[in-house]
Formats: sequence, structure tokens, C-alpha cells
Amino acid sequence: MYTQSVQALIDELGRLPGIGPKSAQRVAFYLLKIDQTDALRLAESITAARLNSTWCRICFNISDSEKCEICRDPKRDQSIICVVEEPKDIVAIEKTREYNGLYHVLQGSLSPMDGVGPDQIRVKELLIRLGNEKVKEVILCTNPNLEGEATAMYISRLLAPTGISATRIASGLPVGGDLEYADELTLGRALEGRRPI
Amino acid sequence: MYTQSVQALIDELGRLPGIGPKSAQRVAFYLLKIDQTDALRLAESITAARLNSTWCRICFNISDSEKCEICRDPKRDQSIICVVEEPKDIVAIEKTREYNGLYHVLQGSLSPMDGVGPDQIRVKELLIRLGNEKVKEVILCTNPNLEGEATAMYISRLLAPTGISATRIASGLPVGGDLEYADELTLGRALEGRRPI
Repeated sequence: MYTQSVQALIDELGRLPGIGPKSAQRVAFYLLKIDQTDALRLAESITAARLNSTWCRICFNISDSEKCEICRDPKRDQSIICVVEEPKDIVAIEKTREYNGLYHVLQGSLSPMDGVGPDQIRVKELLIRLGNEKVKEVILCTNPNLEGEATAMYISRLLAPTGISATRIASGLPVGGDLEYADELTLGRALEGRRPI
Repeated sequence: MYTQSVQALIDELGRLPGIGPKSAQRVAFYLLKIDQTDALRLAESITAARLNSTWCRICFNISDSEKCEICRDPKRDQSIICVVEEPKDIVAIEKTREYNGLYHVLQGSLSPMDGVGPDQIRVKELLIRLGNEKVKEVILCTNPNLEGEATAMYISRLLAPTGISATRIASGLPVGGDLEYADELTLGRALEGRRPI
């Protein structure tokens, strides 16, 4: 019932993550309703982001050149690598201003149920990197969920024989949180990870 | 922290309806991760839909030419016009296969709170159309919510002096629904609209 080009647009939008058929329709009509320049700017930004972006060949962060901004920066501590699942995790960590080392983006986490094993994420590349660079510590900063924990555990085992220290980010109560509303698992981890004050 | 082109993409995606900052980020990374041809196809479909689409100058449906497919079709009943808020409503009605007349898309509904008065929707165009064509009935098929009801009421008053019959779609229980779960307003409407069997 839609014209061919509108139906094609709805189909393409419906393929995006978190966008169902109804949202795809709504977004499509929105794009038809707004100023043409605004609609075309979205198309151009997709094309530009896609054509200008590549993965940093060192850490696999998103980059506009072979080496990303962080890997290019000589002021960053080269002896520590923070391992994350996705580029967006780097943004979150950088916002804390607590970390000045390098990163390594796995581009996923181990999830045998979804067919994601060690070969589907950038573990091999991490090991090669550790062989070449003078790294003293690897912070395993994968998500504190099932897949992230399994991935951290897997990498920590690989690192055991190398003598490089592997650390895991702390689990516990969120700052500003409330004991009453914490789930048992988180509260248990918080107790387990208690530190002298 | 993102490269300029990636940040621009996230910003553009975040402007779409129903897409918050987190979804925008997720969609952007998805577009960077999938095959380049797939990502560029989305950009092309936006451009194509936008450049190939216009509003039918008769009924204001989306169209690939001056007159939409329905207005061009001589087999449709020219004596009846179904007034809807959005082009997607036409698709919903066409799916019922119960209607063979023409349409008129208001491209909105009256909502004084949002600054949408009669001049912001295509009411004037409807009246001009009714003056020119031999229309016997106008079905007011706006949404059964506050704005849709107000819009239907407003148009029905405009039509009163013309002698054209104005009808409103029925409100009532959805087919397959359950009395127990119906809200009082809907159940009240269903009782009020009862018909002999």
C-alpha cells in the first residue's frame, strides 16, 4: 500500500536494533514530514560516519585513521590496558577522568548460546599486543553480567602464565544507591569486596 | 570522545522520534559494525524515499506523483471520503478490505495544547474538495482519543450546513476482546452504540 520507496525505507529502518515495525513506520513518516534538508542530513551522516570510520588497528576502537586518538597519544600510560566490550565503554570510562592508560576493545563478549566464542571477539589480537608491548596490568572491564564475567574469567586464565597482572573492576552498590533496593547478588558482591577505610 | 563523524551520526539519530540518546548510540554502533553496503543502503533509502515522495495534491496521502494511487483509481467510489489523521491510517483501513471510497489525510489532529488549530491541519483543503466533488458521505475516521474526537466533532459541525452526511467510526470492544478487561469508557461506548442483531 505504501509507495515502493517508502516501503523500502520502512523495511530498512525495521532492521535497526530496538526498532520494531511500528517505530520504523513512525520514523519513516517523520522523515517524510520534516524539512527535506533535515532528512537528507541524516542520510549524509550515515554515509559520512560509515566512510570515515575504521577500527583502530591496535585497540579496535572506532577511529578516523589507522591508529585511534588514544593509541596516538604519547601522554597515555602505555603499561596498562583496559579491556572493554564495545567502543561506547571507552567513552563511559573516559568520562570518569580516572584512567589514563590504553584500551582494548573486544567488540563483543563470550556467549556460546549466540555462537560467540573466543575467535569471534578480539582476544587473539589482545594476546599479540601483550606479547609486543610492555604491559604490566590488564584491567578486565567487561560488563558485570553473565557474558562479561565469563569473558573476564577466560582472559584472566590466558594471562595467568604471562605474569601480567589481571584485575577486574569492582562490583558493588552504585554511589547514591540505597541498600534497601540493592539485589542480593550486588549486595553480596559489595560485602565480598569490602575494603578497609 | 567519539570521532566527529560518529558524533554527528549519533546526534542525527537522536533527533528521530522515539529514539533517545542511548538508542541513538546503539543504532550508530550497529551501523558501523554491519556490512558497509547494508549501512549505505539505509542512507540511500532515506534519500530515495524523500526525493521520490510528495503529498497527493488531492487527498494529501504520500504519493510518488501528483495524484496518489487511490485518487487515480477510477474504480474507487468517488461519492464517499474517509477522513484520517495520517497516511498510515489509510494503510490500516485498506487492510480491512471493507472500504472502497476515497480518503482525505488531515496530517494531524486538533490539539490546542500543542498549538495545532484548524489551520495547521488540512481541513480547508477538505472543504474545498467537498465543494468541487460530488461527495455524499464523509466518514470521520480520526483516532478515538481526545484530539481525534475533537477533530471529528469540529469537522462534523463544518459539514452540517452542507447537507453532506458525516459519520463517525464506531467505538466499542475490540473483536476477540474480553468484557472483564474493557475500560469503562469503551464499555460505555459499546453499550451506547448497540445495534439490533
